[in-house]
Amino acid sequence: MTDSSSKIPSPLRIEPIAGYSPTIGRLVGILSYARSTTLAAVDRLTMAELDHLQDAESNSIGALLAHIAVVERSYQVLTFEDRLMTSDETERWSVALKLGADGRRVLRGQPLEHYLSNMSEAREATLKALAARDDDWLERSVAVAPRINAHWAWFHVAEDEINHRGQIRWLRARLPKA
Amino acid sequence: MTDSSSKIPSPLRIEPIAGYSPTIGRLVGILSYARSTTLAAVDRLTMAELDHLQDAESNSIGALLAHIAVVERSYQVLTFEDRLMTSDETERWSVALKLGADGRRVLRGQPLEHYLSNMSEAREATLKALAARDDDWLERSVAVAPRINAHWAWFHVAEDEINHRGQIRWLRARLPKA
Repeated sequence: MTDSSSKIPSPLRIEPIAGYSPTIGRLVGILSYARSTTLAAVDRLTMAELDHLQDAESNSIGALLAHIAVVERSYQVLTFEDRLMTSDETERWSVALKLGADGRRVLRGQPLEHYLSNMSEAREATLKALAARDDDWLERSVAVAPRINAHWAWFHVAEDEINHRGQIRWLRARLPKA
Repeated sequence: MTDSSSKIPSPLRIEPIAGYSPTIGRLVGILSYARSTTLAAVDRLTMAELDHLQDAESNSIGALLAHIAVVERSYQVLTFEDRLMTSDETERWSVALKLGADGRRVLRGQPLEHYLSNMSEAREATLKALAARDDDWLERSVAVAPRINAHWAWFHVAEDEINHRGQIRWLRARLPKA
C-alpha cells in the first residue's frame, strides 16, 4: 500500500477496500467507522472537559482516549511483531492500559490534539501493517496468544474503542456547563 | 441451517462458521461475541437494579437491554424484509428505540429474564435469516436505505450493543449497594 492509509472508506458500508486483501478491507472499514464515531464524540472538547472526573471512580474522557491509543499499540506488538510487550513497553503503557487510580493521577493536563495525535499515529501503523498482510494471516492464531486469531484481536481493538465511546458519550452529556 | 443457530462460536476467534457463508460466519462471530459480553455485564441483576436510574437523564440498564432487542428487530425489517417499519411496529418499538423520558417511564418493572428472552428471540430470527443468505447479499445495498449495505447494517447492530454495554458496565459499577 502506498497512500491508501489516508483513504477514508465510505462510512456506512463494510466491503473490500483498495489496498487491502478483501477480508482485511472489511475489518479496516469496521476500525475506521468506529474511529469516526469516537472523533465525533470528542469533537472540540477542552482540556478541562477532557480532565473532568464524573465521580471518584470515573475515568476522564482524556484517559479513555489515551487508553484507546495504547490498546491499539499493544495489539500491534501481539499480532504484527508476534511477541509480548517488553518491560519497557509495559512500563510506558500500563497506566493507560489499566486506567483507574493511576490513570486519574497521571493522564491529564493535555489538549485534545495530544490524544488525537497518539491515536492517529497508532492507526497509521496499524493500517500500514494490515496492508502488508493477507486474509490467511488474518485468520491465523496469534503466535504468542494461540487462543485468539488475528481477526478477533483487531475486531477487539474496535470493540474496546466502541465500548469506551459509549462511556464517552454518557460522560460528555454530563460535563459541567461552561 | 438446521440447528447451528444454537452453536456458540469460539468466542475469541473471528472466522467462517459452519452453516453460514464465510463472510456471514465472521459477522455472526462478531454478533455472538458482542452478545456474550452483554450477557456477562448484566448477569444476575435484580429488577430493582435493572430499573435503577443513575440520574434524572440516565437510561436504566433494563431500558438499554430493551433497546438492544428492538434495534435488532428494526434492522431485520430493513435488511431481511426490505421495507421500512410499519406504523404498528413504530408504535410498538419507538419507546425502546428512542429511550429518554418515555423510556424511563415505560421500560421498567420487568425481571432480567424478560429482557434476555426478547433479545434471544430477536437473535434466533437474525441467525436463521443470515443462514439463508450468502456473502453477495451481505455486500449489497439495503433496498430501502441504499447508502448502507447489509454488512454495515449488521455490524452496526453489534456496534450499538457494544456502545450500550460500555454504558451498562459503567452504570452497574455504580448501582446502590444492596
